[in-house]
Amino acid sequence: MISLADLQRRIEKGDLAADAAIAQSLEAIAAQDKKIGAFVCHSIAAHAPSTGSLRGIAVGIKDIIDTANFSTEMGSPIYRGFHPRADAPVVSMLKRAGATIIGKTTTTPFAANDPTATLNPHNHAHTPGGSSAGSAAAVGAGMIPLALGTQTGGSVIRPASFCGAAAIKPSYRLLPTVGVKCFSWSLDTVGLFAAGVEDLAIGLSAMTGRSELLLPASIAAPRIGVVTQDFAGEVEAASVEALQIAARAAERAGASVRALPMPAIFADAWRIHTTVQQFEAHQAFAWEYRERYNEMAPLLRSRLDETRDIKPAEYDEAQAIAAQARAALGPIFEEVDVLLTYSAPGAPPKGLDSTGDPRINRLWTLLGTPCVNIPTYMAEGNLPVGVQVIAACGSDGKALAAARFVEQALKRN
Amino acid sequence: MISLADLQRRIEKGDLAADAAIAQSLEAIAAQDKKIGAFVCHSIAAHAPSTGSLRGIAVGIKDIIDTANFSTEMGSPIYRGFHPRADAPVVSMLKRAGATIIGKTTTTPFAANDPTATLNPHNHAHTPGGSSAGSAAAVGAGMIPLALGTQTGGSVIRPASFCGAAAIKPSYRLLPTVGVKCFSWSLDTVGLFAAGVEDLAIGLSAMTGRSELLLPASIAAPRIGVVTQDFAGEVEAASVEALQIAARAAERAGASVRALPMPAIFADAWRIHTTVQQFEAHQAFAWEYRERYNEMAPLLRSRLDETRDIKPAEYDEAQAIAAQARAALGPIFEEVDVLLTYSAPGAPPKGLDSTGDPRINRLWTLLGTPCVNIPTYMAEGNLPVGVQVIAACGSDGKALAAARFVEQALKRN
Repeated sequence: MISLADLQRRIEKGDLAADAAIAQSLEAIAAQDKKIGAFVCHSIAAHAPSTGSLRGIAVGIKDIIDTANFSTEMGSPIYRGFHPRADAPVVSMLKRAGATIIGKTTTTPFAANDPTATLNPHNHAHTPGGSSAGSAAAVGAGMIPLALGTQTGGSVIRPASFCGAAAIKPSYRLLPTVGVKCFSWSLDTVGLFAAGVEDLAIGLSAMTGRSELLLPASIAAPRIGVVTQDFAGEVEAASVEALQIAARAAERAGASVRALPMPAIFADAWRIHTTVQQFEAHQAFAWEYRERYNEMAPLLRSRLDETRDIKPAEYDEAQAIAAQARAALGPIFEEVDVLLTYSAPGAPPKGLDSTGDPRINRLWTLLGTPCVNIPTYMAEGNLPVGVQVIAACGSDGKALAAARFVEQALKRN
Repeated sequence: MISLADLQRRIEKGDLAADAAIAQSLEAIAAQDKKIGAFVCHSIAAHAPSTGSLRGIAVGIKDIIDTANFSTEMGSPIYRGFHPRADAPVVSMLKRAGATIIGKTTTTPFAANDPTATLNPHNHAHTPGGSSAGSAAAVGAGMIPLALGTQTGGSVIRPASFCGAAAIKPSYRLLPTVGVKCFSWSLDTVGLFAAGVEDLAIGLSAMTGRSELLLPASIAAPRIGVVTQDFAGEVEAASVEALQIAARAAERAGASVRALPMPAIFADAWRIHTTVQQFEAHQAFAWEYRERYNEMAPLLRSRLDETRDIKPAEYDEAQAIAAQARAALGPIFEEVDVLLTYSAPGAPPKGLDSTGDPRINRLWTLLGTPCVNIPTYMAEGNLPVGVQVIAACGSDGKALAAARFVEQALKRN
């Protein structure tokens, strides 16, 4: 993978021209993407501006995010050739920081479950995950140092785990979702993919102008609560192993690590994530469902068919449960700095007919907490498996610092 | 004005063809809009579907709301000729209920402060208010029975007060803002304009499928707290008089009415509304401000120039104050059912160089409470003045019922 932090240091020292860094990504795309299929389109004439802390950083943008200079097709024939007038704010934030938008990355149709044709860069017979398939694969394959995706269920953390990339789903609304095709406005969250945790911190800090997101020079050993999410069903041995490896490495590096039971309301909140998501999806996709039903992808369409009878009262009750669960986070983050849990139910599944299951990610999307995926180990078949570090809402800097601590502990393993 | 409830009753009884109701609006537009200028465009071939509770109801849509069949120009040359692919969800909700989208109504550029050329239907020398100028004027002039607008500061309730129309700014997020040009995602709220409170209840209930929003057959006398919002500055005699008239009428009709002091945190919350709005506006308009600066309207542009240095920490502090103020609503709505306050600082100002001041509306937009404007009396010069009824977040049905109580009390005056 391409380290954003390393590129930035070399560019700032004058050891690397910003345009040469962009050219490196263009070459990697030319060499690999015919096989991987991570990009919908990209600019072969991309170059770097002369200023900005992210100059020389080539960024891929998930194709449900509006771009003024590339079409935005939402992974769906319904939006073929669609040209938004404006860049989404997250795209403008990257450009203002000097980054170069190199192209649009594949997305499952409307960021739902119908797979893309993108391959997992580590084992082409396996899924890269979804819905942010192209962003995860492009970073995991070492084509680009930074990419944007979105998560409504598990669409950032899961593909990052599958593709061996670091990723952050920031606190809900830290990044605006304006100009991003909506699935569920209470859940949709823009996230970043990069080679490592430091890269994520640099990217997110540059986008938001929040210097507090940069990693501190020295990271104190965090208090870590290990969470198994039993309410979300059993996970495979590969994920159990990844969590053990990460927890032990962190403990050996000096972290306080202990199993932490979750309050009962979390099981309810996990359950009603679907109610919130699908009730809002019926409104968000009202035009497509009503006017372009036959062109909708089959999994999304049948999911909408199955959930068309959710009543407003059920939605209101689900939102009330979500609010209770968010309130229950307070005492947890008095006891520990961060939580550590699985990023996915296992290694990337074989085949391209499923993007995997978001059941491990749903709760945290609903709660709006920052989540950071850390690539943890390679399971048999060269299949990446990650773990995620979770902090309190608004504590994205703490999530990144603790994730960096775990990442470094894993390197010393 | 055209009563939606009356049209609906006549159509359901078979006394009026749905298409005849649409034709009535087309005739009114043809007769009046050359002078008033409430529409950006409209369909002279509009007709009604054969089903749906809102069949025969012609609706005007503020031109920052996406429509697949009309261009959506945001009141700005930057979006001239822009055709969204999809209808915004609020537009789909109306169509699903059988309503006919008859055209797009004028908006100040990007729903900010630069005035439109629209005239106040009651006195052409005065402003109709803004930013939802066309929707308020079209309903107030009796051209259409229903229109959608949006409020970020005071852009629904203020123009409704100025144009003598009823209006509701529902609870934050009762209606989705997907496909609505964003100004500030924490504040933007889609609202409805109609001739009276019953019309609003029918329209909002049909859009959302929430039968609890319909008015009860008999409305109990509400407990009303009268609020003067001293933190928002002095208001003109016309608004003082409107509030007295409404409070006295409600009391005579059996309501318990008393002055209610507001907690100190409300003054802080009122103050920081601008911080939240402008910090988010800089992100929402990042592309326009960066790429199309010279084409931006002058008042919006200079407002953005003035507020470009708001720091993330100031924004975070403002959001924390907003959260405290929302929490402070709880005890208030244990003491009273609704609040009653001014809808605007006075009658519609003379001239078309200002849309008036949102300072009376800001706090309630920030708090996310449902607000209903009730036309109250005509000040000298045939200038409408309203008052607003405010309920707890999520109690839109209660806000509408109490507003209907006040509206009927005023009729008995």
